[in-house]
Amino acid sequence: MEIIKGGITVPQGFEAAACEAGIKYQDRLDMALIYSKKPCRAAGVFTQNVVKAAPVLWDMEIINSRKKPQAVVINAGTANACTGAAGLRCCQETALLAAETMKMDADSVLVASTGVIGMEMPIDKMQTGIRMMAVSKNDSFDTGTEAARAIMTTDTREKEIAVQVEIDGKIVTVGGMAKGSGMIHPNMCTMLAFLTSDVLISKKMLQHILETDVEETYNMISVDGDTSTNDTVLFLANGMAGNKKLKAGTEDYTAFIAAVRTVNEYLAKAIAADGEGATALFEVTVKGSKTKEKAKTLAKSVVTSSLTKAAIAGHDANWGRFMCALGYSGEVFEPSRVDLFIESAAGKLQLVGNGMAVDYSEEKATEILKEAEVTLLADMKEGVEWATAWGCDLTHGYIDINADYRS
Amino acid sequence: MEIIKGGITVPQGFEAAACEAGIKYQDRLDMALIYSKKPCRAAGVFTQNVVKAAPVLWDMEIINSRKKPQAVVINAGTANACTGAAGLRCCQETALLAAETMKMDADSVLVASTGVIGMEMPIDKMQTGIRMMAVSKNDSFDTGTEAARAIMTTDTREKEIAVQVEIDGKIVTVGGMAKGSGMIHPNMCTMLAFLTSDVLISKKMLQHILETDVEETYNMISVDGDTSTNDTVLFLANGMAGNKKLKAGTEDYTAFIAAVRTVNEYLAKAIAADGEGATALFEVTVKGSKTKEKAKTLAKSVVTSSLTKAAIAGHDANWGRFMCALGYSGEVFEPSRVDLFIESAAGKLQLVGNGMAVDYSEEKATEILKEAEVTLLADMKEGVEWATAWGCDLTHGYIDINADYRS
Repeated sequence: MEIIKGGITVPQGFEAAACEAGIKYQDRLDMALIYSKKPCRAAGVFTQNVVKAAPVLWDMEIINSRKKPQAVVINAGTANACTGAAGLRCCQETALLAAETMKMDADSVLVASTGVIGMEMPIDKMQTGIRMMAVSKNDSFDTGTEAARAIMTTDTREKEIAVQVEIDGKIVTVGGMAKGSGMIHPNMCTMLAFLTSDVLISKKMLQHILETDVEETYNMISVDGDTSTNDTVLFLANGMAGNKKLKAGTEDYTAFIAAVRTVNEYLAKAIAADGEGATALFEVTVKGSKTKEKAKTLAKSVVTSSLTKAAIAGHDANWGRFMCALGYSGEVFEPSRVDLFIESAAGKLQLVGNGMAVDYSEEKATEILKEAEVTLLADMKEGVEWATAWGCDLTHGYIDINADYRS
Repeated sequence: MEIIKGGITVPQGFEAAACEAGIKYQDRLDMALIYSKKPCRAAGVFTQNVVKAAPVLWDMEIINSRKKPQAVVINAGTANACTGAAGLRCCQETALLAAETMKMDADSVLVASTGVIGMEMPIDKMQTGIRMMAVSKNDSFDTGTEAARAIMTTDTREKEIAVQVEIDGKIVTVGGMAKGSGMIHPNMCTMLAFLTSDVLISKKMLQHILETDVEETYNMISVDGDTSTNDTVLFLANGMAGNKKLKAGTEDYTAFIAAVRTVNEYLAKAIAADGEGATALFEVTVKGSKTKEKAKTLAKSVVTSSLTKAAIAGHDANWGRFMCALGYSGEVFEPSRVDLFIESAAGKLQLVGNGMAVDYSEEKATEILKEAEVTLLADMKEGVEWATAWGCDLTHGYIDINADYRS
């Protein structure tokens, strides 16, 4: 497997476009288009929030059908959530126009929105945007990157990646882009992620691979514990790589899964590191657990804690907060067995042995925690299972962004 | 029922003391003593965190026995959590010395600690503190207030209350004090609360009343979602009011329960309003729910959301975040039925009708949200049950306090 330049436009037959539609933001890209020259097998994973945005409802229906999508239209600025019948009408009109303009079936257009909940959708601006993008779409690296930039809200940088693997003697590419930096929490976040691939694969297998992988990647990140109304991961595969259809249990299958994991883990970590106001990526690995599920719950509990996140912001090895967050996770364990370590580019240090402080240097601890990527390692010493969760520190920046986001 | 001046020293036979023991803080009160002239029926509710501080383990054993406590020794600055065998030894030595000095049984002394986890306990300083307090204890209003001040950590003000009711023709008083402003979350918080009363009541009934009431008061507040290792509520009743022993189902019983509720609700709200960095008390009432449990879960979900808390800090009527937090609570409901209102001393305003924005004045909304106590009212329109949760806004102050709390 090789990580290569680019994002969603790298797999064969995929094009992208972005434009300034002025939906809410001014003077910046705020709409994006993903387009495949051929109809795709498509998979999707969506928010578990009871309050689902209109585009989520629209996409769920398509993904759960036998339809073969060919395009995704995305806008940033407005979420199209809590918008009632008008919101669903907006999805429909968006899809109809995109289909008409680009000569596809009306039900082969997926949609996604991110931004303020409850704002009316300016359908006329969206229609202008679609017409512009239908003309400008192409398969260059640049439009891929522009699309990744267009879907940002409070993100500070675009997030994209592409990887290649050999499958059945052919080069298969998986590309991806994502956005999301607030309302980010396990069980799908205010995050959108879009994967493209030229692999030939059944719809059922694509859905299975995506669902399984989301559990270990996007569902293991947290910025603020808020699960959004709009969370969506879509995966389009157009089969243009020329491989024989992927079969479960083969080496090719394993290679493809590894490629998907690389893309999703990269994007998930990029989202966590770009969490609202974040200055550090905070990785929590729990090992020595009896079960994988338990390790996940423990890791998520620490990465979600406001107090541990604030301690990371302060470069403060306040390990009592780590122990405390493990303790209220809902999982039962023996506190007097737990070992804790911190690690970063500046080194590794044990803080706790058998549930109590070891004699460590606070200076060294601070040095380690000052890095842009820091890891907490908790060894429960009761088994062999492990899991990793990703989050970020909690800083003044988060408050600045969220105390008055709408204005 | 009448709310009167004072706190834990108002019920007959109760005394208090406070001193500067220099355990971690310097030049401030950091130890408190509650003392009853007669042995008490005692009830307790403790943290559900798997990692339990030594004083919690100590108290649980006493509360679960037939022992009749007569005193509580409390310190602020160090939590005596993750301190292993040495931590338990510290509880024992504290209790032994207090018992010896004040001529009680060794196992009639409860202990409580709050502060940094994992720090060694300076037992010599605690012993000096106990000796000072054994001499200075008295039943004045002032020592009650000083005790309430001594148990503070990042709290900005002491929290105490006393109420009186007539039971069996006698005046019965319930007094209380509490601390806690960070690591505060439903399921008992880094909070300590101590109630005293001169009522004559069975131990079993006292425990039942306390447990039931905690569910509706302390367990309905949240500052930051972190459940601490040290959460403790203790209730001592010495029977000195002279009433006949309280019987279930009587008017007296109802009156006493109301008094306890008043004390606990007052202290719980005071803790929420004094949340770390808080500038506003944020009250969330969910009504029209099918069940009480569901209303509680929904209310807690909103009051715990970092995004709604940041919106309150910004006086921003970002109702999409309220809807979103209801939606990810885990409870199922029909979003298109929900009505949302905000209310404060500045007025009441409907934001959402049947799941969508109504036409309201943003200026009026901001005016309402600028008050020191603001309420969100969510009407689910599916039943008649309701519940209230309390929290606070999320501000720069929280980050300032927690990015480097230990130093």
